[in-house]
Amino acid sequence: MPSDDSCIFCRIVAGQEAASLVYRDDLVTAFMDILPVNIGHLLVVPNQHSADLAGLDGDSGARMFTVATRLGGALRRSGVQCEGVNLYLADGRAAGQEVFHIHLHVLPRYEGDGFGLRRTKHLGPATRADLENVAARVRSSLGE
Amino acid sequence: MPSDDSCIFCRIVAGQEAASLVYRDDLVTAFMDILPVNIGHLLVVPNQHSADLAGLDGDSGARMFTVATRLGGALRRSGVQCEGVNLYLADGRAAGQEVFHIHLHVLPRYEGDGFGLRRTKHLGPATRADLENVAARVRSSLGE
Repeated sequence: MPSDDSCIFCRIVAGQEAASLVYRDDLVTAFMDILPVNIGHLLVVPNQHSADLAGLDGDSGARMFTVATRLGGALRRSGVQCEGVNLYLADGRAAGQEVFHIHLHVLPRYEGDGFGLRRTKHLGPATRADLENVAARVRSSLGE
Repeated sequence: MPSDDSCIFCRIVAGQEAASLVYRDDLVTAFMDILPVNIGHLLVVPNQHSADLAGLDGDSGARMFTVATRLGGALRRSGVQCEGVNLYLADGRAAGQEVFHIHLHVLPRYEGDGFGLRRTKHLGPATRADLENVAARVRSSLGE
């Protein structure tokens, strides 16, 4: 039974929705993205529903990264065009998240694939004082 | 002593290069990116040098994700503009990697920040047969 019946990724984890699975263990499941950026584009999701990073248990998060790393290696050996790999995760709508069951993208990359990061504003190099100011705020928020 | 004296991130980990640190433990170190995409842009790196994902030990990789998750939460509470968070890693030049000590970006995001993913080619939805074909190739490459 999926942990959230209205969630497409919970339904995939529960075997109630078609998906092309590549990996599954006690904590995470990986399958092909149906809207691939490049051929071989995979998603790694926790088996237990969590909309966001804040709700993701630490063991599942760590496993997601470990499995994504292994899948990146597998993609490089699989024969799909893959000269590099991006791992990408969006936490929150402002970060581009569209499915609210947290997921880690594993993207095969090659020169000229037309994919990349878009920046329309450029801050330029930060000053050390600015960086230290922000670092202090992040450090003091870490323990909260 | 840095594990690779010519590597800027090894030198930061070893305290031989200026950096605005936000976190450090036995396996990973996190500090401010000096060319921030948005204010608060952080990097999490393994203390032990590895150019790429293939050479990264599993414990350090898992810890990188765990620490990046905690830092994402800290950024949201820190007062910097942060409505969402991206985690991003580039493995290989074709994936956009520029510093060859593997690193995980933690990017604060907000609506209208001008940052995102760029796609100049669109594959369109994949067929189930195509996805199954690729999935089979990835699965058979996983054990190698």
